[in-house]
Amino acid sequence: MSSSSAAPVAKPSMREALVSAAFRLFLERGYEQTTVDDIVALAGVGRRSFFRYFPSKEDVVFPDHERCLADMTAFLAASDEQHEPVRRVCDAARLVLRMYAENPTFSVQRYRLTKKVPGLRAYELSVVWRYERALAEYLRGRFAGRPDGTLRADVIAAAVVAAHNNALRSWLRSDGVGDAGAAVDCALGYVQREFGAAAGPAAPPVRIHPLPGGEGDRPDDVVVLVSRRDAPLWRVVQELEAALGRA
Amino acid sequence: MSSSSAAPVAKPSMREALVSAAFRLFLERGYEQTTVDDIVALAGVGRRSFFRYFPSKEDVVFPDHERCLADMTAFLAASDEQHEPVRRVCDAARLVLRMYAENPTFSVQRYRLTKKVPGLRAYELSVVWRYERALAEYLRGRFAGRPDGTLRADVIAAAVVAAHNNALRSWLRSDGVGDAGAAVDCALGYVQREFGAAAGPAAPPVRIHPLPGGEGDRPDDVVVLVSRRDAPLWRVVQELEAALGRA
Repeated sequence: MSSSSAAPVAKPSMREALVSAAFRLFLERGYEQTTVDDIVALAGVGRRSFFRYFPSKEDVVFPDHERCLADMTAFLAASDEQHEPVRRVCDAARLVLRMYAENPTFSVQRYRLTKKVPGLRAYELSVVWRYERALAEYLRGRFAGRPDGTLRADVIAAAVVAAHNNALRSWLRSDGVGDAGAAVDCALGYVQREFGAAAGPAAPPVRIHPLPGGEGDRPDDVVVLVSRRDAPLWRVVQELEAALGRA
Repeated sequence: MSSSSAAPVAKPSMREALVSAAFRLFLERGYEQTTVDDIVALAGVGRRSFFRYFPSKEDVVFPDHERCLADMTAFLAASDEQHEPVRRVCDAARLVLRMYAENPTFSVQRYRLTKKVPGLRAYELSVVWRYERALAEYLRGRFAGRPDGTLRADVIAAAVVAAHNNALRSWLRSDGVGDAGAAVDCALGYVQREFGAAAGPAAPPVRIHPLPGGEGDRPDDVVVLVSRRDAPLWRVVQELEAALGRA
């Protein structure tokens, strides 16, 4: 999908054979006890073929992250001003979910393996960090005009990744049973409600009336807000923030 | 502060001498080119002394994180129901900032070193992950009664860490000049406004009136909210969410 993908375009058969051989050995003998030589022997190929596809033994555990990162970067680069930025990064995060959901059995096996091997957990953290930076860089561009732009970008990117992973890990812990997509949609929906600015199509009107208060109040101490019941909450809050001078 | 700290209580002089010797060599020769033997030779102590204080060469780069993690865990464990949970995790994050701000020169040197050495970046990611998990575990306990408790906990913990690190890294990039505490307060304030539920002391009243709408509206289609201007935004939004049936 993207020319920036690090791995060469693989003949599916050899690449898949390497991943399959590696996982068979990891599950039988343990990750640490399996060498690259063991993997290539079982797959019936040479060491050079292995390193053509995977820079290291760790990479064969996460064979699709580089492609997915490249896809995510390309997806975000193809955005325009019309895309609501928080929704856009949520959609970008769904690319990761799709990769996991494509092969539930493999994803669950890998999840169990990663939990047991500290080196793989560290590798996974670095991958997650790269996804988060890709989302944050995009948001920083979109929020460039705001004084709190980088802060907002970093916080939203972290929130999106945390929500995605909360749902993904629940699904992996339950052995890949159930609808991962629905769970991730629900989790990302929470982030969109907290931070998003386009929960619906055209925003219904929200009107703010600063009014003098009752006895004991200073003038202008009370705000009356009139909103259609179906106004998106973000829109109401935005108006409120402006009225209260805290935007 | 906590008995769960992994490192033994150090004679300040030897521990500090090791850190100081290590950093002198890291800066002169580079991190990869410096061995533990080089460090102990310069500090004038034996290898066993080094490993008494630091499990590995990486740990000498981050000598205070274990103590800080233990302090954070103890701080969160000492919480009670009276503590507003989001404010509490923000205060816990400030313990990390304090550790960096105690010694700006050292923190800036380490920041530059970490940026150059992939192994140290990976180590730092694993430390950040442990802080985030400590915050999330605390929040999961506090939100245990909510159906979205774990999601909310994970997202808020990630947001707090991202906000803290956004401000911390700005300060480190500017060579530790300026008020790190104020920058972090500002960044954490953003997260508290987004997620917190106790921005002030006693909450002033917020009143909601569902009213029949005007022409073309269905009855009960319009909500009128009357709020004191000084009502905390979270309180207003909470009432709104309840009135709109989206809490």
